[in-house]
Amino acid sequence: MKVVVVGGPGTIGRAVVERLQPRHELISVGHTRGDMQVDITDQRSVEAMFRQIGQVDAIISVAGIAHFGSVTETSPEQFNLGLQNKLLGQVRLALVGQNYLSDGGSITLTSGILSHEPIRLGSNLSAVNAAIDSFVLAAAVELPRGLRINAVSPTIVTESEAAYGPFFPGFESVPAATVAQAFIRSVEGPQTGRVYRVWGG
Amino acid sequence: MKVVVVGGPGTIGRAVVERLQPRHELISVGHTRGDMQVDITDQRSVEAMFRQIGQVDAIISVAGIAHFGSVTETSPEQFNLGLQNKLLGQVRLALVGQNYLSDGGSITLTSGILSHEPIRLGSNLSAVNAAIDSFVLAAAVELPRGLRINAVSPTIVTESEAAYGPFFPGFESVPAATVAQAFIRSVEGPQTGRVYRVWGG
Repeated sequence: MKVVVVGGPGTIGRAVVERLQPRHELISVGHTRGDMQVDITDQRSVEAMFRQIGQVDAIISVAGIAHFGSVTETSPEQFNLGLQNKLLGQVRLALVGQNYLSDGGSITLTSGILSHEPIRLGSNLSAVNAAIDSFVLAAAVELPRGLRINAVSPTIVTESEAAYGPFFPGFESVPAATVAQAFIRSVEGPQTGRVYRVWGG
Repeated sequence: MKVVVVGGPGTIGRAVVERLQPRHELISVGHTRGDMQVDITDQRSVEAMFRQIGQVDAIISVAGIAHFGSVTETSPEQFNLGLQNKLLGQVRLALVGQNYLSDGGSITLTSGILSHEPIRLGSNLSAVNAAIDSFVLAAAVELPRGLRINAVSPTIVTESEAAYGPFFPGFESVPAATVAQAFIRSVEGPQTGRVYRVWGG
């Protein structure tokens, strides 16, 4: 399969690329790194990326940021960061990308555990992650040509513990390689409208 | 209690106002109707509304629209309608409104069944509703002064069946008066971080 991984240069993205590489033709796209660059908040950038890559069999997104801060001090403008970036950015990859998918191709987006297990400062990510999960449920019932769409919802990955661990007290981390397995289930498996939770506990 | 109901002139809003009116001081705010008007997508409009109303004991939002259309034909710009209106508009009411709430006051937002039960053309609403639910979970753990925040997630209301019923095949509708009960549980009850599902089946 020809597989584009947006966010391929990131922590989880690298693990995904590494596991898929032996069997597939991979294009790793980053914001500033990777084989190609894309700005997922920019419609023209996403369109240009897909035009350049052409038809693919799977679209993986491990991309997107959100605002991190207390709900008591967050402005609507700050809250909009996650809506425009991790949420609409990934939805854009799906909406534009569906037209570049071969029959039976798949889209796999990334959400995260905060949809169900809130942490302090995480309200923007909680909202965004939940939206991604339910977008996938809804989009799956409409996609034609056997196209599939799923989400992977990881907890904090072990490789990010040094940086983010203190914000996730008592959360059991999961290695990026384990999260990568869920992407493989989505890409190579038969399911659609599924949220693969990769939660240590 | 002094209670502001944004979306008070709407189908569910009227039922909420009717039930709360006998015991509380109600301000019904609409987009074009009501005691006052507000544009929830406009930061200055929301700030002006709260400045004019002053301190309140409960903020209820039954407001917000989203895009309705097939995921195969939705543009990211169209998808952004729900993100800016029903999602960020309601989040804005919470973020700005928290500063106008008396100690122990409550915020109640509106989501909807499509977060869990997708329908055709409903992917924007599915995403938005889920985001509202999880925003409420996350915001509840951070709000100070005993402030509470909940969401009411209704199915299609009986009063809207003539207009929207065909989009909800086999969904059991619920009278707006029943949905209004969930708002009363949120405003007068003790809970926070709760999503009150009002789903007929």
